Amino acid sequence: MATLLDGKKTSSDIRIEIAEKVKIIKSKGGKIPHLAAILVGNDGASETYVSNKVKDCEQVGFTSTLKRFDNSVTEAELLKEVEAINNDPDIDGLIVQLPIPDHISVQKVTDMIKPEKDVDGFHPVNVGRMAKSLPSYISATPFGIMQLIERYKIETSGKHCVVIGRSDIVGSPMSILLSRKAYPGNCTVTLCHSRTKDIKAMTLQADIIIAALGIPEFLTGDMVREGAVVIDVGITRVEDSSKKSGFSLRGDVKFDEVAPKCSFITPVPGGVGPMTRASLLMNTLLAAEKSIYK
Amino acid sequence: MATLLDGKKTSSDIRIEIAEKVKIIKSKGGKIPHLAAILVGNDGASETYVSNKVKDCEQVGFTSTLKRFDNSVTEAELLKEVEAINNDPDIDGLIVQLPIPDHISVQKVTDMIKPEKDVDGFHPVNVGRMAKSLPSYISATPFGIMQLIERYKIETSGKHCVVIGRSDIVGSPMSILLSRKAYPGNCTVTLCHSRTKDIKAMTLQADIIIAALGIPEFLTGDMVREGAVVIDVGITRVEDSSKKSGFSLRGDVKFDEVAPKCSFITPVPGGVGPMTRASLLMNTLLAAEKSIYK
Repeated sequence: MATLLDGKKTSSDIRIEIAEKVKIIKSKGGKIPHLAAILVGNDGASETYVSNKVKDCEQVGFTSTLKRFDNSVTEAELLKEVEAINNDPDIDGLIVQLPIPDHISVQKVTDMIKPEKDVDGFHPVNVGRMAKSLPSYISATPFGIMQLIERYKIETSGKHCVVIGRSDIVGSPMSILLSRKAYPGNCTVTLCHSRTKDIKAMTLQADIIIAALGIPEFLTGDMVREGAVVIDVGITRVEDSSKKSGFSLRGDVKFDEVAPKCSFITPVPGGVGPMTRASLLMNTLLAAEKSIYK
Repeated sequence: MATLLDGKKTSSDIRIEIAEKVKIIKSKGGKIPHLAAILVGNDGASETYVSNKVKDCEQVGFTSTLKRFDNSVTEAELLKEVEAINNDPDIDGLIVQLPIPDHISVQKVTDMIKPEKDVDGFHPVNVGRMAKSLPSYISATPFGIMQLIERYKIETSGKHCVVIGRSDIVGSPMSILLSRKAYPGNCTVTLCHSRTKDIKAMTLQADIIIAALGIPEFLTGDMVREGAVVIDVGITRVEDSSKKSGFSLRGDVKFDEVAPKCSFITPVPGGVGPMTRASLLMNTLLAAEKSIYK
């Protein structure tokens, strides 16, 4: 039976480590890491995400600032706020919670964030530095997956990794990261997506599978070979009358079929999800320590 | 027998097209595209490359400026020159011929070039924009390969492309470009490199092979399946007593064995090489037209 890649436990370990580092910083009278978040409008999911991020900061001892705007905020006003935060020496990291209203260009806002404070890792400079194997902020989900692989000491060098899904925020960066000459990395990486003709033919060759396409239970038992490492990035709400809430969460992997064949597998929930939250804290600490941009 | 992907002919077509566009610009009294090149020291190969680039500019009617420095130039002096060119409204594109002396940081110099003028496509902003599928300058060799694929109308969607070699300037960007949702692109891409355990197992599955590892005649006939498209990026001098010069040029592909199995193949020389030179002209024209950064 597979070893579970316990994202909840690992993420909790990371938080404890970060909290300890903050204590040391405080005891030495150093500057406390400070994350700023911009939230536009009052989309329910966004509210939850941002309030979790603020809570996470509090828990590890970071300072946090939440700047809220109405949906009516203009692009110019938002860009001005980003610039003010760029220039605020006390703030180490800045995230702009997406989505933002259609009248504001996501690209313009992303481009305006100083790469040194771009703890979401979405700025082209950070993506480009990642692709060039230079130090960079790595966006939350890929960074979380890399941490899981590292902390469970999963061998990656020379392994064939099949990534399913080519999104900007997961599939594409994972394919880049695992190809790099580093650990985790040095994988032979195949990036599959909606145009791939025979995904099963690929996954059956894989030592490591990263399922990040957002189709519940897409990866079935017959698509995985014995001993594979399976990382499930999907998290979709599906109706489930057996649950009090009326729904349950499904990953991109048919867990019951796939898990028995795996050496390692992430559960959903409790796998990649909690790691994503820890990543933002790690990036904020890196920003405060000026570890990426010296 | 395979169709030859004739880079010499295609590159010549592109130059003629560019020259015609420049004539139109001139006839309308518009601004002539202007490329600046910085050359440090007097390395023989670098001299040749830069003088070819200057000649190429003249041939299509571009303005060019060559700034030469001794090997003793300081980093600060070089960065100052880059800044001056960044701020010169007449200059559209800037390249710094590599290598530069060890006492100067390539990364600092690359980072200093304004992304809008970075016609070599090496700045992290351009690499990041490429990875995010945003408009960007694409570096010369990948851009040349994309042009060859496009001009020969090679089908790429849903094809399995195996890239051998993960260099920053060829393999890695090719793997990103051919994965993108675009034409050329939409390939299932596998990126192989020195740590890949069984490259042959991968290439035998490939519809398209990009050989960019720099090992002469690495790709042999038994590694390629019938009908494959093979693009040979390698170009290595090997001793050859039958030649007057005492050497001949070899690609990464064992042409005589591989060509009979292919649908399309690039010769070496005369395939990717000439396309690389044309790419710089295309990028300089794009810069002058402000097509990438509006």
